Amino acid sequence: MNIDGKHYRTIWPHADGASVEVIDQTRLPHEFATLRLANLSDAVAAIRSMVVRGAPLIGVTAAYGLALAMRFDASDDGLTQASQALLEARPTAVNLRWALDEMRARIAPLSPSARPEAAWTRAAEIADEDVAISRRIGVAGLPLIETAYAKTGRPVNILTHCNAGWLATVDWGTATAPIYMAHDAGIPVHIWVDETRPRNQGAALTAYELGHHGVPHTIVADNAGGHLMQHGMVDLCIVGTDRTTARGDVCNKIGTYLKALAAHANGVPFYVALPQTTIDWTIEDGVRDIPIEERDPREVSHMTGRLDRGSLATVQITAPGSPVSNFAFDVTPAEYVTALITDRGVCAASADGLRHLFGTR
Amino acid sequence: MNIDGKHYRTIWPHADGASVEVIDQTRLPHEFATLRLANLSDAVAAIRSMVVRGAPLIGVTAAYGLALAMRFDASDDGLTQASQALLEARPTAVNLRWALDEMRARIAPLSPSARPEAAWTRAAEIADEDVAISRRIGVAGLPLIETAYAKTGRPVNILTHCNAGWLATVDWGTATAPIYMAHDAGIPVHIWVDETRPRNQGAALTAYELGHHGVPHTIVADNAGGHLMQHGMVDLCIVGTDRTTARGDVCNKIGTYLKALAAHANGVPFYVALPQTTIDWTIEDGVRDIPIEERDPREVSHMTGRLDRGSLATVQITAPGSPVSNFAFDVTPAEYVTALITDRGVCAASADGLRHLFGTR
Repeated sequence: MNIDGKHYRTIWPHADGASVEVIDQTRLPHEFATLRLANLSDAVAAIRSMVVRGAPLIGVTAAYGLALAMRFDASDDGLTQASQALLEARPTAVNLRWALDEMRARIAPLSPSARPEAAWTRAAEIADEDVAISRRIGVAGLPLIETAYAKTGRPVNILTHCNAGWLATVDWGTATAPIYMAHDAGIPVHIWVDETRPRNQGAALTAYELGHHGVPHTIVADNAGGHLMQHGMVDLCIVGTDRTTARGDVCNKIGTYLKALAAHANGVPFYVALPQTTIDWTIEDGVRDIPIEERDPREVSHMTGRLDRGSLATVQITAPGSPVSNFAFDVTPAEYVTALITDRGVCAASADGLRHLFGTR
Repeated sequence: MNIDGKHYRTIWPHADGASVEVIDQTRLPHEFATLRLANLSDAVAAIRSMVVRGAPLIGVTAAYGLALAMRFDASDDGLTQASQALLEARPTAVNLRWALDEMRARIAPLSPSARPEAAWTRAAEIADEDVAISRRIGVAGLPLIETAYAKTGRPVNILTHCNAGWLATVDWGTATAPIYMAHDAGIPVHIWVDETRPRNQGAALTAYELGHHGVPHTIVADNAGGHLMQHGMVDLCIVGTDRTTARGDVCNKIGTYLKALAAHANGVPFYVALPQTTIDWTIEDGVRDIPIEERDPREVSHMTGRLDRGSLATVQITAPGSPVSNFAFDVTPAEYVTALITDRGVCAASADGLRHLFGTR
């Protein structure tokens, strides 16, 4: 996507062929800066400190991290140690493990001398595959926005939650891919960006990327979505998902479920965009069977932002001494999901719908 | 209510009989401090700067402000000018206008020499009436919590939104009155306190008052309520209302509607507590006919809290340059309200229910 007219991915090989560059997301939205990763420990640090975040981007960074490690020690021990170090940087990230498995499958059978180049090539392929997946999601979802525009002739108002944007992937994003494609195709869109407490990925990251690509948008408190839908100010919702069950329940950032309820109550289509890798074919009932991570209460009680004089500061915003809990995700049952937008096309959020696209498995 | 074992109202006459004291709410939750109002301009400043906030408390403060003004100039001109100054301190506050009308009805017919004492007496009556109204709401709502406790024998989990607490009234609060009564009666309760973006009245004020009165509670992001209700972690919801229509639609802090939808979808009773003064008998359809105030976007884009070193600071938390909108209230249609808890008892959220309690009007 573009930042002020210049095309960027979130991660790309440096011209020297011996390092990769990433956008330092810890400095967004207040500052745009890139960081060069030259070795394994740079990659581990970037993942651990959330310089890079978003499941797909973490996976690609880990792939490049392994490729960088191979330049210094391509022995079997070196491969094992590098994989372990990357895995431990974000132990719960499923894509990270997947990307490392992909890398090892390609390079472990090779002789150490052949590994550096093969690793570099495979990491680049994984990055390109991620872009292709997002692009296919965009192509699948674009007609939904085109149809909404054809119906009213007005700018299409789309509500999204959290950041399932290009900053979470290598390019395009998942929920945002159809939005960027519509915008680039000249269809007027306006995005309601949920702030997305407690980590504010909407207000900070989604708003940042939409703004710099030139997509009209407005940040709202998470509380506002019901009012907006009640008053016809939302034509459709598109959100992402971290985990999708075999019958189409979706586990996404906390608060997604409340927006799905409001969409349902007000006849607003509620779409969920996803790469097929988020589908967990072993689970049917997401509310019952998906464990919900509880994160550090400090994410709720404290907030970091920019002081008027420009530097960043963290303030406590809750009553001192009051307990805080921080559930990170919630599950939206399939009945509230109008359709799934996948890299293989659009389908009903149901076992039949998913089977139809992805085979019987 | 109690703060660390000592009973407080939010406003009370000072022992000197010539001034009133208030809790300085601009310093909550980080610091408890009281402020003495000795004359009209003190009262105007306290209302304008939100040292006092909450519709009932603003009304009582205005009443005392007029009483203080009468000590210095009890002429007809003095009365008119003082009323005008107080009205302009918060022009949209309905209770403020009501309290001033009450005061003038009592003292305008009197000779200037009789006005100061009569004004003081009437202001104290208005304060006591407010306490009585909250207490009656508490008495009406208490059996709902008792019933929930009798059913499970577990602590009753109650979710509330915003601050319809004693800090918004003179004592007890509206939504919190049944909660305090249950707690004081030894019924175990645990309150889920919605943060209530963008102004954070839940995380800052409701958590503060519950904590200092000793009521078990946990602050959650506004996004969490759906997940909590989906998993049986909420036995009932109680919220306040700023305006209630003749058929029982309620206009309350933005985000209330989303919680009502989640309660409805999960079979959780959703109660709304209100003094009858919030009922607007001229309106039926709240979604259609209640205008929703849009407030300063800075309430969303910036956040004030306490730095680790103790001082307060304000930080920007949104992407610089991104537009922000800030709808302050939303309307929950009566169909999502299990019952209204009023100072005349509990009734169905319907035209019939309200007529039954309040007569045909």
